[in-house]
Amino acid sequence: MAVTEALSLFGDRWVLLVVREAALGVRRFTDLQQTTGAPRTVLADRLRRLVAAGVLEQRAYVLPGARPRPEYVLTAAGRDLLPVLAAFTDWAARHLADDRPADVTYRHAGCGGHVGAHLVCDCGAEITPGDRLVASVLREGTP
Amino acid sequence: MAVTEALSLFGDRWVLLVVREAALGVRRFTDLQQTTGAPRTVLADRLRRLVAAGVLEQRAYVLPGARPRPEYVLTAAGRDLLPVLAAFTDWAARHLADDRPADVTYRHAGCGGHVGAHLVCDCGAEITPGDRLVASVLREGTP
Repeated sequence: MAVTEALSLFGDRWVLLVVREAALGVRRFTDLQQTTGAPRTVLADRLRRLVAAGVLEQRAYVLPGARPRPEYVLTAAGRDLLPVLAAFTDWAARHLADDRPADVTYRHAGCGGHVGAHLVCDCGAEITPGDRLVASVLREGTP
Repeated sequence: MAVTEALSLFGDRWVLLVVREAALGVRRFTDLQQTTGAPRTVLADRLRRLVAAGVLEQRAYVLPGARPRPEYVLTAAGRDLLPVLAAFTDWAARHLADDRPADVTYRHAGCGGHVGAHLVCDCGAEITPGDRLVASVLREGTP
């Protein structure tokens, strides 16, 4: 699972792992616990942070004869994290190569093609590794 | 600095902040300490991890009359992290809006246009929020 290594490398992997599972349609605490492998208290903390940040929305579901329980659904802001996940996934697949395929790929519902994160300029050109990219620093007071 | 909030939200912000400063051309320990604001021991640890991960290369520079000192330069794998940074930056600017402009923008050296991370399908179509995206899970043994 190369992307897990990338997320682990970049700090707290649980947050983006939870977002990824939510994008895959996993909504319930026990299911999220199983698919992410996060300890119970860690998962509860990360879900709280993601709800507070507006990435997940907490809803309630009721099974017959049971108390309402919370489930977690990606908001529009949460779905907008897919480019971050796709970029992480692409990078991990390219640079943490371990002969295992990426564990999640993103596909276009229209044609089934692989979807990746690309750098695109407003002029329409796609930025390739050979292109020079300028990182501009805007400090306070910069027009 | 909206992107700093996003990186902080997603765990250890120091790692990607160091990569960002390296992409801006900052190479020396004391300069990285100043631009990232990372405590000395934290910065030393993250630099070690980034060198071990093949994201940074450690070189030596010598000032007249002084001992050689290390400096840190992005590798090709490190430069490939720009889409991750750009995706984070775009997301933070859109969803952690606080009326402050993004503190770093990525521009195309050819035309000066803004460069952002976009989801693009192999079929050439750019994925927009209205498009349905399918996340496919590949478990071990899946063809």
